Amino acid sequence: MTAHSFSSKRLTIIGVGLIGGSLARALRRAEVCDEIVGCGRDERHLQKAVELGVIDRYEMDAATAVSGADVVVLAVPLRAMVTVLTQMTPGLSADVVITDVGSAKGCVVEEARAVLGSRLCDFVPGHPIAGTEKSGVEASFAELFDGRGVILTPIEATDAVKCQRIRAMWEVAGAKVTEMAVLHHDEVLAATSHLPHLLAFSLVNTLASLDESKDIFAFAAGGFRDFTRIASSDPVMWRDICMENRDAMLEVLQLFNNDLKQLEEAVRDNDGEAVVNVFTRAKETRDRFCG
Amino acid sequence: MTAHSFSSKRLTIIGVGLIGGSLARALRRAEVCDEIVGCGRDERHLQKAVELGVIDRYEMDAATAVSGADVVVLAVPLRAMVTVLTQMTPGLSADVVITDVGSAKGCVVEEARAVLGSRLCDFVPGHPIAGTEKSGVEASFAELFDGRGVILTPIEATDAVKCQRIRAMWEVAGAKVTEMAVLHHDEVLAATSHLPHLLAFSLVNTLASLDESKDIFAFAAGGFRDFTRIASSDPVMWRDICMENRDAMLEVLQLFNNDLKQLEEAVRDNDGEAVVNVFTRAKETRDRFCG
Repeated sequence: MTAHSFSSKRLTIIGVGLIGGSLARALRRAEVCDEIVGCGRDERHLQKAVELGVIDRYEMDAATAVSGADVVVLAVPLRAMVTVLTQMTPGLSADVVITDVGSAKGCVVEEARAVLGSRLCDFVPGHPIAGTEKSGVEASFAELFDGRGVILTPIEATDAVKCQRIRAMWEVAGAKVTEMAVLHHDEVLAATSHLPHLLAFSLVNTLASLDESKDIFAFAAGGFRDFTRIASSDPVMWRDICMENRDAMLEVLQLFNNDLKQLEEAVRDNDGEAVVNVFTRAKETRDRFCG
Repeated sequence: MTAHSFSSKRLTIIGVGLIGGSLARALRRAEVCDEIVGCGRDERHLQKAVELGVIDRYEMDAATAVSGADVVVLAVPLRAMVTVLTQMTPGLSADVVITDVGSAKGCVVEEARAVLGSRLCDFVPGHPIAGTEKSGVEASFAELFDGRGVILTPIEATDAVKCQRIRAMWEVAGAKVTEMAVLHHDEVLAATSHLPHLLAFSLVNTLASLDESKDIFAFAAGGFRDFTRIASSDPVMWRDICMENRDAMLEVLQLFNNDLKQLEEAVRDNDGEAVVNVFTRAKETRDRFCG
Protein backbone atom coordinates (compact mmCIF):
# COMPACT_ATOMS: atom_id res chain seq x y z
CA MET A 1 0.00 0.00 0.00
CA THR A 2 1.44 3.37 -1.00
CA ALA A 3 0.87 6.63 0.82
CA HIS A 4 -1.95 7.46 -1.56
CA SER A 5 -3.75 4.14 -1.49
CA PHE A 6 -7.29 4.12 -2.78
CA SER A 7 -10.08 1.60 -2.77
CA SER A 8 -13.80 1.68 -3.32
CA LYS A 9 -16.56 -0.79 -2.53
CA ARG A 10 -18.81 0.70 -5.17
CA LEU A 11 -17.72 3.36 -7.64
CA THR A 12 -20.35 4.85 -9.94
CA ILE A 13 -19.44 6.48 -13.23
CA ILE A 14 -22.12 8.59 -14.84
CA GLY A 15 -21.26 8.93 -18.52
CA VAL A 16 -19.26 5.90 -19.68
CA GLY A 17 -17.48 7.38 -22.69
CA LEU A 18 -13.82 7.87 -23.55
CA ILE A 19 -12.94 9.47 -20.21
CA GLY A 20 -15.34 7.63 -17.91
CA GLY A 21 -14.61 4.32 -19.63
CA SER A 22 -10.86 4.82 -19.49
CA LEU A 23 -11.02 5.69 -15.78
CA ALA A 24 -13.00 2.50 -15.13
CA ARG A 25 -10.44 0.47 -17.07
CA ALA A 26 -7.52 2.08 -15.22
CA LEU A 27 -9.12 1.40 -11.82
CA ARG A 28 -9.82 -2.21 -12.83
CA ARG A 29 -6.21 -2.56 -13.88
CA ALA A 30 -5.25 -1.44 -10.35
CA GLU A 31 -7.83 -3.79 -8.81
CA VAL A 32 -9.05 -1.18 -6.35
CA CYS A 33 -12.83 -1.30 -6.88
CA ASP A 34 -15.12 -4.10 -5.69
CA GLU A 35 -17.78 -2.92 -8.11
CA ILE A 36 -18.03 -0.32 -10.86
CA VAL A 37 -21.54 0.82 -11.78
CA GLY A 38 -22.25 2.73 -14.96
CA CYS A 39 -25.06 5.16 -15.71
CA GLY A 40 -26.03 7.03 -18.86
CA ARG A 41 -28.82 7.90 -21.25
CA ASP A 42 -28.17 5.31 -23.95
CA GLU A 43 -28.84 1.75 -22.79
CA ARG A 44 -27.17 0.07 -25.79
CA HIS A 45 -24.07 2.08 -25.03
CA LEU A 46 -24.09 0.87 -21.39
CA GLN A 47 -24.67 -2.72 -22.52
CA LYS A 48 -21.63 -2.36 -24.74
CA ALA A 49 -19.64 -1.09 -21.73
CA VAL A 50 -20.64 -4.21 -19.77
CA GLU A 51 -19.73 -6.46 -22.71
CA LEU A 52 -16.33 -4.78 -22.97
CA GLY A 53 -15.77 -5.44 -19.26
CA VAL A 54 -15.50 -1.72 -18.54
CA ILE A 55 -18.31 -1.68 -15.94
CA ASP A 56 -19.88 -4.49 -13.88
CA ARG A 57 -23.47 -3.35 -14.32
CA TYR A 58 -25.50 -0.26 -15.11
CA GLU A 59 -28.55 1.65 -14.00
CA MET A 60 -30.52 4.05 -16.17
CA ASP A 61 -31.64 6.17 -13.22
CA ALA A 62 -28.94 8.37 -11.68
CA ALA A 63 -30.25 8.25 -8.10
CA THR A 64 -30.38 4.45 -8.24
CA ALA A 65 -26.93 4.32 -9.83
CA VAL A 66 -25.26 6.30 -7.03
CA SER A 67 -27.10 4.41 -4.27
CA GLY A 68 -24.55 2.77 -1.98
CA ALA A 69 -21.60 4.20 -3.92
CA ASP A 70 -18.69 5.64 -1.94
CA VAL A 71 -17.30 7.39 -5.04
CA VAL A 72 -19.30 9.02 -7.85
CA VAL A 73 -17.57 10.29 -11.00
CA LEU A 74 -19.50 12.61 -13.30
CA ALA A 75 -18.06 12.07 -16.79
CA VAL A 76 -20.90 13.59 -18.80
CA PRO A 77 -20.67 16.60 -21.17
CA LEU A 78 -20.58 19.97 -19.39
CA ARG A 79 -24.12 20.85 -20.47
CA ALA A 80 -25.47 17.71 -18.79
CA MET A 81 -23.82 18.32 -15.42
CA VAL A 82 -26.63 20.28 -13.81
CA THR A 83 -29.24 17.72 -14.81
CA VAL A 84 -27.17 14.79 -13.57
CA LEU A 85 -26.33 16.57 -10.29
CA THR A 86 -30.03 17.20 -9.73
CA GLN A 87 -31.16 13.69 -10.65
CA MET A 88 -28.60 11.82 -8.56
CA THR A 89 -28.72 13.87 -5.35
CA PRO A 90 -31.61 11.97 -3.69
CA GLY A 91 -29.64 8.70 -3.98
CA LEU A 92 -26.30 9.87 -2.51
CA SER A 93 -24.84 7.96 0.47
CA ALA A 94 -23.71 9.87 3.54
CA ASP A 95 -20.04 8.97 3.06
CA VAL A 96 -19.84 9.58 -0.71
CA VAL A 97 -17.28 11.69 -2.49
CA ILE A 98 -18.34 13.14 -5.84
CA THR A 99 -15.98 14.34 -8.55
CA ASP A 100 -16.30 15.35 -12.18
CA VAL A 101 -14.09 15.46 -15.26
CA GLY A 102 -15.42 18.63 -16.88
CA SER A 103 -13.04 20.62 -19.08
CA ALA A 104 -14.16 23.92 -17.55
CA LYS A 105 -14.48 24.26 -13.81
CA GLY A 106 -16.13 27.62 -13.04
CA CYS A 107 -19.44 26.57 -14.55
CA VAL A 108 -19.48 23.16 -12.85
CA VAL A 109 -18.64 24.64 -9.44
CA GLU A 110 -21.45 27.15 -9.85
CA GLU A 111 -23.94 24.42 -10.70
CA ALA A 112 -22.74 22.14 -7.89
CA ARG A 113 -23.09 25.01 -5.46
CA ALA A 114 -26.67 25.58 -6.58
CA VAL A 115 -27.72 21.92 -6.59
CA LEU A 116 -25.74 20.24 -3.80
CA GLY A 117 -26.37 22.78 -1.04
CA SER A 118 -25.02 21.38 2.23
CA ARG A 119 -23.50 18.45 0.32
CA LEU A 120 -21.14 20.79 -1.55
CA CYS A 121 -18.35 19.68 0.83
CA ASP A 122 -18.57 16.20 -0.77
CA PHE A 123 -17.76 17.53 -4.24
CA VAL A 124 -14.20 17.69 -5.57
CA PRO A 125 -14.07 19.44 -8.97
CA GLY A 126 -11.55 17.75 -11.26
CA HIS A 127 -10.25 17.66 -14.81
CA PRO A 128 -8.00 15.00 -16.34
CA ILE A 129 -5.84 16.63 -19.04
CA ALA A 130 -6.08 13.68 -21.36
CA GLY A 131 -8.18 12.60 -24.26
CA THR A 132 -8.05 11.92 -27.94
CA GLU A 133 -10.14 13.19 -30.84
CA LYS A 134 -12.13 9.97 -30.50
CA SER A 135 -15.15 9.53 -28.23
CA GLY A 136 -17.28 6.72 -26.84
CA VAL A 137 -16.55 3.72 -24.63
CA GLU A 138 -15.12 1.78 -27.60
CA ALA A 139 -12.28 4.32 -27.71
CA SER A 140 -11.51 3.99 -23.98
CA PHE A 141 -8.29 2.38 -22.75
CA ALA A 142 -6.69 1.81 -19.36
CA GLU A 143 -3.47 3.69 -20.18
CA LEU A 144 -5.13 6.99 -21.13
CA PHE A 145 -4.10 8.73 -17.90
CA ASP A 146 -0.66 7.17 -17.42
CA GLY A 147 1.75 9.99 -16.68
CA ARG A 148 -0.84 12.61 -17.67
CA GLY A 149 -1.96 15.50 -15.50
CA VAL A 150 -5.17 15.76 -13.54
CA ILE A 151 -6.09 19.14 -12.11
CA LEU A 152 -8.27 19.29 -9.01
CA THR A 153 -9.81 22.65 -8.16
CA PRO A 154 -11.11 22.29 -4.58
CA ILE A 155 -13.06 25.29 -3.31
CA GLU A 156 -13.33 26.58 0.24
CA ALA A 157 -16.22 24.27 1.05
CA THR A 158 -14.44 21.13 -0.20
CA ASP A 159 -13.69 18.52 2.48
CA ALA A 160 -9.91 18.08 2.57
CA VAL A 161 -10.09 14.34 3.27
CA LYS A 162 -12.44 13.80 0.33
CA CYS A 163 -10.15 15.84 -1.91
CA GLN A 164 -7.28 13.59 -0.83
CA ARG A 165 -9.38 10.56 -1.72
CA ILE A 166 -9.97 11.78 -5.29
CA ARG A 167 -6.28 12.60 -5.61
CA ALA A 168 -5.50 9.02 -4.59
CA MET A 169 -8.04 7.66 -7.10
CA TRP A 170 -6.36 9.49 -10.00
CA GLU A 171 -2.92 8.47 -8.81
CA VAL A 172 -3.81 4.78 -8.86
CA ALA A 173 -5.24 5.41 -12.33
CA GLY A 174 -1.73 6.48 -13.36
CA ALA A 175 -2.08 10.28 -13.36
CA LYS A 176 -0.08 13.10 -11.80
CA VAL A 177 -2.37 15.31 -9.74
CA THR A 178 -2.09 19.08 -9.31
CA GLU A 179 -4.34 21.45 -7.39
CA MET A 180 -5.23 24.84 -8.80
CA ALA A 181 -7.74 27.63 -8.26
CA VAL A 182 -10.89 27.36 -10.40
CA LEU A 183 -10.26 30.59 -12.29
CA HIS A 184 -6.61 29.76 -12.96
CA HIS A 185 -7.66 26.37 -14.33
CA ASP A 186 -10.14 27.95 -16.70
CA GLU A 187 -7.57 30.45 -17.98
CA VAL A 188 -4.90 27.79 -18.49
CA LEU A 189 -7.26 25.46 -20.34
CA ALA A 190 -8.72 28.26 -22.45
CA ALA A 191 -5.18 28.97 -23.65
CA THR A 192 -3.79 25.48 -24.19
CA SER A 193 -6.91 23.58 -25.19
CA HIS A 194 -10.11 25.51 -25.82
CA LEU A 195 -8.66 28.22 -28.09
CA PRO A 196 -6.59 25.72 -30.12
CA HIS A 197 -9.75 23.68 -30.73
CA LEU A 198 -11.68 26.80 -31.77
CA LEU A 199 -8.91 27.79 -34.19
CA ALA A 200 -8.62 24.31 -35.67
CA PHE A 201 -12.38 24.00 -36.21
CA SER A 202 -12.50 27.52 -37.65
CA LEU A 203 -9.60 26.98 -40.05
CA VAL A 204 -10.96 23.71 -41.42
CA ASN A 205 -14.35 25.37 -41.83
CA THR A 206 -12.76 28.18 -43.85
CA LEU A 207 -10.80 25.75 -45.98
CA ALA A 208 -13.93 23.65 -46.58
CA SER A 209 -15.41 26.65 -48.42
CA LEU A 210 -12.19 27.13 -50.37
CA ASP A 211 -12.02 23.44 -51.22
CA GLU A 212 -15.33 23.62 -53.05
CA SER A 213 -13.66 25.71 -55.73
CA LYS A 214 -10.00 24.78 -55.49
CA ASP A 215 -9.60 21.14 -54.40
CA ILE A 216 -7.06 21.98 -51.72
CA PHE A 217 -7.20 19.03 -49.31
CA ALA A 218 -5.75 16.58 -51.81
CA PHE A 219 -2.44 18.37 -51.31
CA ALA A 220 -2.42 18.66 -47.53
CA ALA A 221 0.76 17.34 -45.92
CA GLY A 222 1.45 15.69 -42.60
CA GLY A 223 1.79 19.02 -40.81
CA PHE A 224 -1.77 19.88 -41.79
CA ARG A 225 -3.04 16.55 -40.52
CA ASP A 226 -1.45 17.12 -37.12
CA PHE A 227 -2.56 20.75 -36.96
CA THR A 228 -6.17 19.89 -37.69
CA ARG A 229 -6.45 16.59 -35.79
CA ILE A 230 -8.35 18.33 -32.96
CA ALA A 231 -10.90 19.53 -35.52
CA SER A 232 -12.06 15.89 -35.65
CA SER A 233 -13.19 16.16 -32.02
CA ASP A 234 -16.83 15.92 -30.96
CA PRO A 235 -18.60 19.14 -32.08
CA VAL A 236 -21.27 19.11 -29.35
CA MET A 237 -18.78 18.56 -26.55
CA TRP A 238 -16.62 21.40 -27.84
CA ARG A 239 -19.56 23.74 -28.33
CA ASP A 240 -20.36 23.15 -24.66
CA ILE A 241 -16.78 23.80 -23.57
CA CYS A 242 -16.56 27.03 -25.58
CA MET A 243 -19.85 28.23 -24.17
CA GLU A 244 -19.20 27.20 -20.58
CA ASN A 245 -15.71 28.69 -20.52
CA ARG A 246 -16.66 31.63 -22.71
CA ASP A 247 -15.12 34.47 -20.72
CA ALA A 248 -11.67 32.94 -20.36
CA MET A 249 -11.69 31.79 -23.97
CA LEU A 250 -12.76 35.14 -25.44
CA GLU A 251 -10.05 36.81 -23.38
CA VAL A 252 -7.24 34.66 -24.74
CA LEU A 253 -8.76 34.85 -28.24
CA GLN A 254 -8.46 38.64 -27.96
CA LEU A 255 -4.74 38.32 -27.13
CA PHE A 256 -4.32 35.93 -30.04
CA ASN A 257 -6.13 38.23 -32.47
CA ASN A 258 -4.00 41.22 -31.45
CA ASP A 259 -0.74 39.31 -31.92
CA LEU A 260 -1.89 37.80 -35.21
CA LYS A 261 -2.82 41.25 -36.48
CA GLN A 262 0.70 42.48 -35.71
CA LEU A 263 2.21 39.48 -37.45
CA GLU A 264 -0.02 40.05 -40.47
CA GLU A 265 1.15 43.67 -40.64
CA ALA A 266 4.78 42.53 -40.46
CA VAL A 267 4.24 40.15 -43.38
CA ARG A 268 2.42 42.85 -45.34
CA ASP A 269 5.20 45.38 -44.65
CA ASN A 270 7.87 42.85 -45.63
CA ASP A 271 9.35 43.19 -42.13
CA GLY A 272 11.23 39.90 -42.14
CA GLU A 273 12.97 40.61 -38.86
CA ALA A 274 9.70 40.99 -36.96
CA VAL A 275 8.33 37.82 -38.57
CA VAL A 276 11.39 35.73 -37.80
CA ASN A 277 11.43 37.01 -34.21
CA VAL A 278 7.89 35.77 -33.62
CA PHE A 279 8.59 32.42 -35.32
CA THR A 280 11.83 31.94 -33.37
CA ARG A 281 10.23 32.70 -30.02
CA ALA A 282 7.43 30.28 -30.84
CA LYS A 283 9.82 27.52 -31.89
CA GLU A 284 12.01 27.98 -28.82
CA THR A 285 9.00 27.97 -26.52
CA ARG A 286 7.48 24.89 -28.09
CA ASP A 287 10.76 22.98 -28.19
CA ARG A 288 11.30 23.79 -24.51
CA PHE A 289 7.89 22.59 -23.35
CA CYS A 290 6.90 19.89 -25.80
CA GLY A 291 10.25 18.92 -27.33
CA MET B 1 11.80 -0.67 -66.87
CA THR B 2 8.48 1.03 -66.21
CA ALA B 3 6.92 3.64 -68.44
CA HIS B 4 8.37 6.38 -66.26
CA SER B 5 11.88 5.04 -65.89
CA PHE B 6 14.50 7.48 -64.79
CA SER B 7 18.25 7.42 -64.59
CA SER B 8 21.00 9.97 -64.25
CA LYS B 9 24.72 9.81 -64.83
CA ARG B 10 25.34 12.75 -62.54
CA LEU B 11 22.65 14.36 -60.39
CA THR B 12 23.56 17.49 -58.44
CA ILE B 13 21.63 18.56 -55.36
CA ILE B 14 22.20 22.10 -54.19
CA GLY B 15 21.17 22.29 -50.54
CA VAL B 16 21.54 18.87 -48.89
CA GLY B 17 19.05 19.24 -46.02
CA LEU B 18 15.92 17.33 -45.07
CA ILE B 19 14.39 17.49 -48.56
CA GLY B 20 17.55 17.39 -50.69
CA GLY B 21 19.04 14.65 -48.50
CA SER B 22 15.87 12.57 -48.53
CA LEU B 23 15.62 12.83 -52.32
CA ALA B 24 19.24 11.65 -52.62
CA ARG B 25 18.51 8.72 -50.30
CA ALA B 26 15.34 7.80 -52.21
CA LEU B 27 17.17 7.86 -55.55
CA ARG B 28 20.01 5.76 -54.08
CA ARG B 29 17.42 3.28 -52.83
CA ALA B 30 16.16 3.02 -56.43
CA GLU B 31 19.73 2.76 -57.75
CA VAL B 32 19.08 5.16 -60.61
CA CYS B 33 22.01 7.60 -60.27
CA ASP B 34 25.60 6.85 -61.19
CA GLU B 35 26.75 9.78 -59.07
CA ILE B 36 25.10 12.25 -56.71
CA VAL B 37 26.98 15.50 -56.13
CA GLY B 38 26.12 17.84 -53.27
CA CYS B 39 26.62 21.57 -53.00
CA GLY B 40 26.00 24.02 -50.18
CA ARG B 41 27.42 26.80 -48.07
CA ASP B 42 28.46 24.79 -45.01
CA GLU B 43 31.33 22.42 -45.71
CA ARG B 44 31.02 20.47 -42.43
CA HIS B 45 27.40 19.85 -43.31
CA LEU B 46 28.38 18.49 -46.73
CA GLN B 47 31.10 16.33 -45.18
CA LYS B 48 28.43 14.92 -42.88
CA ALA B 49 26.25 14.17 -45.93
CA VAL B 50 29.14 12.22 -47.50
CA GLU B 51 29.76 10.33 -44.23
CA LEU B 52 26.09 9.42 -44.05
CA GLY B 53 26.29 8.08 -47.61
CA VAL B 54 23.70 10.57 -48.81
CA ILE B 55 25.93 12.08 -51.53
CA ASP B 56 29.03 10.75 -53.24
CA ARG B 57 31.00 13.99 -53.12
CA TYR B 58 30.51 17.71 -52.89
CA GLU B 59 31.61 20.98 -54.38
CA MET B 60 31.45 24.35 -52.64
CA ASP B 61 31.09 26.26 -55.92
CA ALA B 62 27.68 25.95 -57.60
CA ALA B 63 28.96 26.23 -61.20
CA THR B 64 31.51 23.49 -60.55
CA ALA B 65 28.90 21.36 -58.79
CA VAL B 66 26.50 21.38 -61.75
CA SER B 67 29.24 20.79 -64.30
CA GLY B 68 28.51 17.60 -66.23
CA ALA B 69 25.26 17.02 -64.37
CA ASP B 70 22.22 15.93 -66.38
CA VAL B 71 19.86 16.75 -63.49
CA VAL B 72 20.16 19.65 -61.04
CA VAL B 73 17.86 19.90 -58.01
CA LEU B 74 17.69 23.19 -56.13
CA ALA B 75 16.77 22.33 -52.54
CA VAL B 76 17.82 25.57 -50.91
CA PRO B 77 15.58 27.98 -48.96
CA LEU B 78 13.41 30.20 -51.16
CA ARG B 79 15.46 33.31 -50.41
CA ALA B 80 18.62 31.61 -51.67
CA MET B 81 17.14 30.54 -55.03
CA VAL B 82 18.08 33.63 -57.03
CA THR B 83 21.68 33.54 -55.80
CA VAL B 84 22.07 29.85 -56.52
CA LEU B 85 20.46 30.18 -59.96
CA THR B 86 22.89 32.99 -60.79
CA GLN B 87 25.97 31.23 -59.46
CA MET B 88 25.34 27.88 -61.12
CA THR B 89 24.29 29.07 -64.59
CA PRO B 90 27.79 29.31 -66.11
CA GLY B 91 28.41 25.62 -65.29
CA LEU B 92 25.22 24.12 -66.75
CA SER B 93 25.49 21.36 -69.36
CA ALA B 94 23.57 21.63 -72.60
CA ASP B 95 21.35 18.63 -71.84
CA VAL B 96 20.60 19.46 -68.21
CA VAL B 97 17.19 19.61 -66.60
CA ILE B 98 16.85 21.84 -63.55
CA THR B 99 14.15 21.56 -60.91
CA ASP B 100 13.55 23.01 -57.47
CA VAL B 101 11.63 22.07 -54.32
CA GLY B 102 10.51 25.53 -53.20
CA SER B 103 7.28 25.75 -51.19
CA ALA B 104 6.09 28.74 -53.22
CA LYS B 105 6.30 28.71 -56.98
CA GLY B 106 5.39 32.19 -58.27
CA CYS B 107 8.53 33.75 -56.81
CA VAL B 108 10.85 30.99 -58.03
CA VAL B 109 9.43 31.10 -61.55
CA GLU B 110 9.91 34.86 -61.63
CA GLU B 111 13.53 34.54 -60.53
CA ALA B 112 14.24 31.68 -62.94
CA ARG B 113 12.78 33.74 -65.76
CA ALA B 114 15.08 36.65 -64.90
CA VAL B 115 18.24 34.60 -64.43
CA LEU B 116 18.00 31.67 -66.85
CA GLY B 117 16.98 33.62 -69.95
CA SER B 118 17.02 31.25 -72.94
CA ARG B 119 17.67 28.31 -70.58
CA LEU B 120 14.27 28.79 -68.94
CA CYS B 121 13.00 25.83 -71.00
CA ASP B 122 15.32 23.59 -68.98
CA PHE B 123 13.65 24.53 -65.69
CA VAL B 124 10.78 22.49 -64.22
CA PRO B 125 9.35 24.19 -61.10
CA GLY B 126 8.43 21.58 -58.47
CA HIS B 127 7.31 21.15 -54.89
CA PRO B 128 7.27 17.90 -52.89
CA ILE B 129 4.43 18.07 -50.34
CA ALA B 130 6.41 16.34 -47.66
CA GLY B 131 8.58 17.26 -44.75
CA THR B 132 8.73 17.18 -41.00
CA GLU B 133 9.33 19.87 -38.42
CA LYS B 134 12.97 18.73 -38.41
CA SER B 135 15.65 20.07 -40.70
CA GLY B 136 19.16 19.15 -41.82
CA VAL B 137 20.66 16.15 -43.56
CA GLU B 138 20.66 14.15 -40.30
CA ALA B 139 16.86 14.23 -40.39
CA SER B 140 16.67 12.98 -44.00
CA PHE B 141 15.34 9.52 -44.85
CA ALA B 142 14.67 7.58 -48.04
CA GLU B 143 10.97 7.02 -47.32
CA LEU B 144 10.02 10.69 -46.93
CA PHE B 145 8.30 10.89 -50.31
CA ASP B 146 6.73 7.43 -50.41
CA GLY B 147 3.11 7.86 -51.40
CA ARG B 148 3.32 11.64 -50.92
CA GLY B 149 2.40 14.25 -53.50
CA VAL B 150 4.76 16.24 -55.64
CA ILE B 151 3.35 19.18 -57.56
CA LEU B 152 5.05 20.30 -60.75
CA THR B 153 4.08 23.70 -62.12
CA PRO B 154 5.51 23.81 -65.66
CA ILE B 155 5.12 27.13 -67.45
CA GLU B 156 4.67 27.81 -71.15
CA ALA B 157 8.40 27.86 -71.74
CA THR B 158 9.03 24.51 -70.01
CA ASP B 159 10.29 21.73 -72.27
CA ALA B 160 7.71 18.93 -72.11
CA VAL B 161 10.32 16.16 -72.32
CA LYS B 162 12.29 17.67 -69.44
CA CYS B 163 9.11 18.00 -67.40
CA GLN B 164 8.47 14.32 -68.03
CA ARG B 165 11.98 13.53 -66.85
CA ILE B 166 11.43 15.30 -63.50
CA ARG B 167 8.09 13.56 -63.09
CA ALA B 168 9.88 10.24 -63.59
CA MET B 169 12.54 11.22 -61.04
CA TRP B 170 9.93 11.86 -58.34
CA GLU B 171 8.05 8.71 -59.22
CA VAL B 172 11.11 6.53 -58.72
CA ALA B 173 11.61 8.41 -55.43
CA GLY B 174 8.19 7.06 -54.38
CA ALA B 175 6.00 10.12 -54.92
CA LYS B 176 2.73 10.72 -56.74
CA VAL B 177 3.14 13.58 -59.21
CA THR B 178 0.49 16.16 -60.13
CA GLU B 179 0.74 19.15 -62.45
CA MET B 180 -0.86 22.45 -61.59
CA ALA B 181 -0.72 26.11 -62.60
CA VAL B 182 1.74 28.23 -60.61
CA LEU B 183 -0.95 30.48 -59.13
CA HIS B 184 -3.20 27.58 -58.18
CA HIS B 185 -0.28 25.90 -56.42
CA ASP B 186 0.47 29.01 -54.41
CA GLU B 187 -3.17 29.37 -53.35
CA VAL B 188 -3.51 25.74 -52.34
CA LEU B 189 -0.30 25.76 -50.33
CA ALA B 190 -1.12 29.08 -48.68
CA ALA B 191 -4.32 27.47 -47.41
CA THR B 192 -3.14 24.04 -46.35
CA SER B 193 0.41 24.78 -45.25
CA HIS B 194 1.55 28.39 -45.04
CA LEU B 195 -1.43 29.76 -43.10
CA PRO B 196 -1.48 26.83 -40.64
CA HIS B 197 2.21 27.44 -39.92
CA LEU B 198 1.59 31.17 -39.42
CA LEU B 199 -1.27 30.43 -37.02
CA ALA B 200 0.70 27.84 -35.06
CA PHE B 201 3.71 30.13 -34.68
CA SER B 202 1.45 33.02 -33.73
CA LEU B 203 -0.52 31.05 -31.13
CA VAL B 204 2.57 29.68 -29.41
CA ASN B 205 4.04 33.18 -29.39
CA THR B 206 0.91 34.53 -27.69
CA LEU B 207 0.91 31.71 -25.16
CA ALA B 208 4.61 32.26 -24.44
CA SER B 209 3.68 35.71 -23.09
CA LEU B 210 0.85 34.24 -21.05
CA ASP B 211 3.08 31.48 -19.72
CA GLU B 212 5.38 34.01 -18.11
CA SER B 213 2.64 34.84 -15.64
CA LYS B 214 0.50 31.72 -15.58
CA ASP B 215 2.63 28.61 -16.15
CA ILE B 216 0.28 27.22 -18.78
CA PHE B 217 2.41 24.78 -20.78
CA ALA B 218 2.77 22.35 -17.89
CA PHE B 219 -0.88 21.47 -18.47
CA ALA B 220 -0.89 21.18 -22.25
CA ALA B 221 -2.35 17.90 -23.49
CA GLY B 222 -1.64 15.77 -26.54
CA GLY B 223 -3.97 17.79 -28.73
CA PHE B 224 -1.90 20.89 -28.07
CA ARG B 225 1.30 19.04 -28.93
CA ASP B 226 -0.12 17.99 -32.30
CA PHE B 227 -1.63 21.39 -33.00
CA THR B 228 1.63 23.21 -32.34
CA ARG B 229 4.07 20.67 -33.83
CA ILE B 230 4.52 22.82 -36.94
CA ALA B 231 5.56 25.74 -34.68
CA SER B 232 8.79 23.78 -34.13
CA SER B 233 9.65 24.24 -37.81
CA ASP B 234 12.60 26.28 -39.00
CA PRO B 235 11.80 29.98 -38.43
CA VAL B 236 13.98 31.34 -41.24
CA MET B 237 12.61 28.92 -43.80
CA TRP B 238 9.05 29.83 -42.82
CA ARG B 239 9.72 33.56 -42.79
CA ASP B 240 10.90 33.13 -46.37
CA ILE B 241 7.83 31.15 -47.37
CA CYS B 242 5.46 33.68 -45.80
CA MET B 243 7.24 36.54 -47.52
CA GLU B 244 7.60 34.86 -50.89
CA ASN B 245 3.99 33.70 -51.00
CA ARG B 246 2.68 36.81 -49.29
CA ASP B 247 -0.23 37.67 -51.56
CA ALA B 248 -1.83 34.23 -51.53
CA MET B 249 -1.26 33.87 -47.79
CA LEU B 250 -2.70 37.25 -46.86
CA GLU B 251 -5.72 36.45 -48.99
CA VAL B 252 -6.54 33.21 -47.21
CA LEU B 253 -5.69 34.80 -43.85
CA GLN B 254 -8.36 37.39 -44.62
CA LEU B 255 -10.93 34.63 -45.22
CA PHE B 256 -9.85 32.94 -41.99
CA ASN B 257 -10.10 36.17 -39.98
CA ASN B 258 -13.59 36.89 -41.29
CA ASP B 259 -14.85 33.42 -40.40
CA LEU B 260 -13.16 33.46 -36.99
CA LYS B 261 -14.76 36.82 -36.25
CA GLN B 262 -18.19 35.34 -37.00
CA LEU B 263 -17.47 32.35 -34.80
CA GLU B 264 -16.30 34.63 -32.01
CA GLU B 265 -19.55 36.59 -32.26
CA ALA B 266 -21.55 33.37 -32.10
CA VAL B 267 -19.72 32.32 -28.91
CA ARG B 268 -20.20 35.79 -27.42
CA ASP B 269 -23.91 35.77 -28.31
CA ASN B 270 -24.34 32.27 -26.86
CA ASP B 271 -25.50 31.09 -30.30
CA GLY B 272 -24.78 27.41 -29.75
CA GLU B 273 -26.38 26.36 -33.02
CA ALA B 274 -24.08 28.53 -35.11
CA VAL B 275 -21.07 27.25 -33.16
CA VAL B 276 -21.98 23.60 -33.48
CA ASN B 277 -22.67 24.06 -37.20
CA VAL B 278 -19.15 25.35 -37.80
CA PHE B 279 -17.59 22.63 -35.63
CA THR B 280 -19.64 19.90 -37.34
CA ARG B 281 -18.76 21.06 -40.84
CA ALA B 282 -15.09 21.19 -39.84
CA LYS B 283 -15.16 17.71 -38.31
CA GLU B 284 -16.96 16.21 -41.30
CA THR B 285 -14.55 17.86 -43.72
CA ARG B 286 -11.47 16.77 -41.83
CA ASP B 287 -12.71 13.22 -41.31
CA ARG B 288 -13.45 12.97 -45.03
CA PHE B 289 -10.04 14.17 -46.20
CA CYS B 290 -7.65 13.11 -43.46
CA GLY B 291 -9.63 10.39 -41.68
